[in-house]
Amino acid sequence: MTLRIFSDVSAPESSLRLLADGTSGYELCLSRTRGGSVLDQAPTDPQLYTAEVAFGQPDPGAIIHAKSLRWLQISSSSITRYDTPEFREWVTRRGIAVCNSASVYAEACAEHALSFMLAQSRLLPESLRTRARGGSEAWERLRNNSMPLRGQSVLIVGYGAIGARLVELLRPFEMNVTAVRREVRGDESVPTIQVGRVDDVLSLGPDHVIDILPDSAETANFFDAARFAKMNPGSVFYNIGRGTTVDQTALLEVLDSGRVAAAWLDVTCPEPLPEDHPLLAQWNCHITPHVAGGHRDESVTLVRHFLGNLLRFTRGEALRDRVM
Amino acid sequence: MTLRIFSDVSAPESSLRLLADGTSGYELCLSRTRGGSVLDQAPTDPQLYTAEVAFGQPDPGAIIHAKSLRWLQISSSSITRYDTPEFREWVTRRGIAVCNSASVYAEACAEHALSFMLAQSRLLPESLRTRARGGSEAWERLRNNSMPLRGQSVLIVGYGAIGARLVELLRPFEMNVTAVRREVRGDESVPTIQVGRVDDVLSLGPDHVIDILPDSAETANFFDAARFAKMNPGSVFYNIGRGTTVDQTALLEVLDSGRVAAAWLDVTCPEPLPEDHPLLAQWNCHITPHVAGGHRDESVTLVRHFLGNLLRFTRGEALRDRVM
Repeated sequence: MTLRIFSDVSAPESSLRLLADGTSGYELCLSRTRGGSVLDQAPTDPQLYTAEVAFGQPDPGAIIHAKSLRWLQISSSSITRYDTPEFREWVTRRGIAVCNSASVYAEACAEHALSFMLAQSRLLPESLRTRARGGSEAWERLRNNSMPLRGQSVLIVGYGAIGARLVELLRPFEMNVTAVRREVRGDESVPTIQVGRVDDVLSLGPDHVIDILPDSAETANFFDAARFAKMNPGSVFYNIGRGTTVDQTALLEVLDSGRVAAAWLDVTCPEPLPEDHPLLAQWNCHITPHVAGGHRDESVTLVRHFLGNLLRFTRGEALRDRVM
Repeated sequence: MTLRIFSDVSAPESSLRLLADGTSGYELCLSRTRGGSVLDQAPTDPQLYTAEVAFGQPDPGAIIHAKSLRWLQISSSSITRYDTPEFREWVTRRGIAVCNSASVYAEACAEHALSFMLAQSRLLPESLRTRARGGSEAWERLRNNSMPLRGQSVLIVGYGAIGARLVELLRPFEMNVTAVRREVRGDESVPTIQVGRVDDVLSLGPDHVIDILPDSAETANFFDAARFAKMNPGSVFYNIGRGTTVDQTALLEVLDSGRVAAAWLDVTCPEPLPEDHPLLAQWNCHITPHVAGGHRDESVTLVRHFLGNLLRFTRGEALRDRVM
């Protein structure tokens, strides 16, 4: 079978060689106009128009002219630029499979989320800075304000590959974990509620609220003043989803009032925040620069994920991380 | 049964009330000369000499004059001041049970150790400081140098209540965990090797080496230049045991040369380190001020641990955390 594979994936030479080796039985067309990162949209290369398989971040406006396309493998976890009713309608009508690369980033993202939770419960930002003497007031305060995660409660808002892995990592902590997602599918590993009822579960007062929502019209400012007001006083907010899902002015207010004890954000809007943004100066707001999914040999994992799906595709098996 | 219980435990009023309530069927003698913290040795109160049960940190030199003593419940995880051949010989001869309070601190200590491991693997100290823009060199470096814990290897040096709980917390990470302890008892949850063979396992090159050794004559400078030289280049060293178990000059050298990628220490020698100590200025050395075991309501957990053992003691059942 001569399968024509187009890729505009952004990756170092070594990973592109792995891609070339892994597709050696097929025709691989590497775009000469690749994006700057796995998240960037690549400028359109006309080779896309004749491909049966596309791997990377091709422009959705261009894809609809790819008449032979049967499978699109998106190189990111986010599918925001493809997540429109028109695009969904088009791929459904044409029978095109669309996959994201969520499982490539899920392990690192879930570990990042847990690193945030433990850094908060062990008060690492403060305890790494101080040299408090044993028995001093500052030392007693640090010890007494540390709260083991064991037995606390967590709400995961946006359950997917990352949430599922986070649930596994949290298992030994015997926490009370609940999740919320757009469509409850019944395959979730914890009690999961349809997103429309999120306010009910927020009102139950989970100790930790973890935002893993994608960017979309529905999720813009999802966490606003009203939702933060429903949170348990003293609870902690985390965002490893997208910055657009949080009303940052409202977040600043609840952090400043102490109603929300702390926020840990891997994503903001914009990224990075401007130098004078008040969240940067807020003592109980901790920000990492959108690195949660990052890990050594990331592009190798990404190419391997594609090659694994390519094998499944040629065998007619179910694809991994299929989203449309 | 009129049991005479002596306690010099250092705890807030509310916990002492809990102790009084929980021992209401017995005679409780609270020392008027309590230590400053659970770790401090209390000055001797003569009430000790007639007690059948002692709870706290009584002076080992005074205890041997407590002719009626049948059980000593030490209020710390550390038993250093009692861990002498003479004291062991005396309690054995007199049939006195000695327990520590390891399980009171095990959860917080194990979570502290995992918070260190994840903060290192997610490079939190650096990524919380930077505001690197997506796609920049600094950002790529952060993402590429993050190493998920999943599948890495760990050596726990000093397996006890903390190590056992840490093994549970690490389970979902599918790491290759090995332990070393003074006496292998066969009840360990991971492959465990007698401490005399530690150099063999260090030479196998674990990615993470976790020191949970107590302070004793045998463990002084346990991690010295020779042992650090055996460690896998790029591995990470953690100490949540005691500061005396590490040759700090040797540690500084291997951190400075980059042979050991980073150190995370909750304990040092002395505590805190003097202002001008070079480990404080070492960029890849992260220090918290002996807070690993700390947690909210710590003294309540401590009193409950004693009361649980008291129930077992009066019923003639096996005591928890028995060390002699």
